[in-house]
Amino acid sequence: MEIVKIGVIESPYLEQQGTPLHPVYIDESWGRIVISPEFRNALADLDGFNRLWIISWLDRSNSYDLKVIPFRDTVERGLFATRYPKRPNPIGISAANIKSIQIETGIIELDGVDLLNGTPVLDLKPYIPAVDSFPDATAGWFEASNTTTADDR
Amino acid sequence: MEIVKIGVIESPYLEQQGTPLHPVYIDESWGRIVISPEFRNALADLDGFNRLWIISWLDRSNSYDLKVIPFRDTVERGLFATRYPKRPNPIGISAANIKSIQIETGIIELDGVDLLNGTPVLDLKPYIPAVDSFPDATAGWFEASNTTTADDR
Repeated sequence: MEIVKIGVIESPYLEQQGTPLHPVYIDESWGRIVISPEFRNALADLDGFNRLWIISWLDRSNSYDLKVIPFRDTVERGLFATRYPKRPNPIGISAANIKSIQIETGIIELDGVDLLNGTPVLDLKPYIPAVDSFPDATAGWFEASNTTTADDR
Repeated sequence: MEIVKIGVIESPYLEQQGTPLHPVYIDESWGRIVISPEFRNALADLDGFNRLWIISWLDRSNSYDLKVIPFRDTVERGLFATRYPKRPNPIGISAANIKSIQIETGIIELDGVDLLNGTPVLDLKPYIPAVDSFPDATAGWFEASNTTTADDR
């Protein structure tokens, strides 16, 4: 199981503090992915989608605990019941809005991104509502937390 | 960037042919994740969610092309505009329905899963509609394909 970097994130976020927790909470209006030359031809047809999954390696996360107090909570939770970035495999999934794609330069401009500047990108996948969107899924502790702290971000 | 296996998939699918393309197309009614002992305490609180993201390593995919004909299409597409399993990093994301979670044994029973038996699991994340569900996202080539071939699966 060997992973390769297919590109890199460019964003206004230089440190974890102040970085939005998810793309939906973004205040900055820019962010981009720069795909390495050898992978750029794989970007064809992605322009038919307005949203994509960025699979990234959260490289500033180099340790983890099995129980954590999530950013949006005050109670300790099992790590796998959170989206906390410090994980056994610090892999992030971000559903970001596509602004434009340029295959020749490998640049995908986004409406914004919840990732630190310099974060390695491992994969891109099209967001497909039929298989990814479940508006009625129950959101455990996050539901209550969401209600009380949504105006924080 | 070193990845570790946190668990393994058990499913009725022993080879790629016949394996459902996504959890929503599943016909078999079982599938489970077995989390390794050292990570089981991280499963606490996941039972408040009815759906989770399984981040997996598609270990039967050991090569890739930048252009592919997706399973549900007849035209060649850029790899990153598809969910084709053979990728530079064969990382899968599956939004699966949770039937039950047993922390002591590390067993998460699912309504079904779109992964081969024995697939290594890299991460689990709760599915959170507020950040994961975008019912109105446009689905490019998949939209047309979906309409014509949905009864295939």
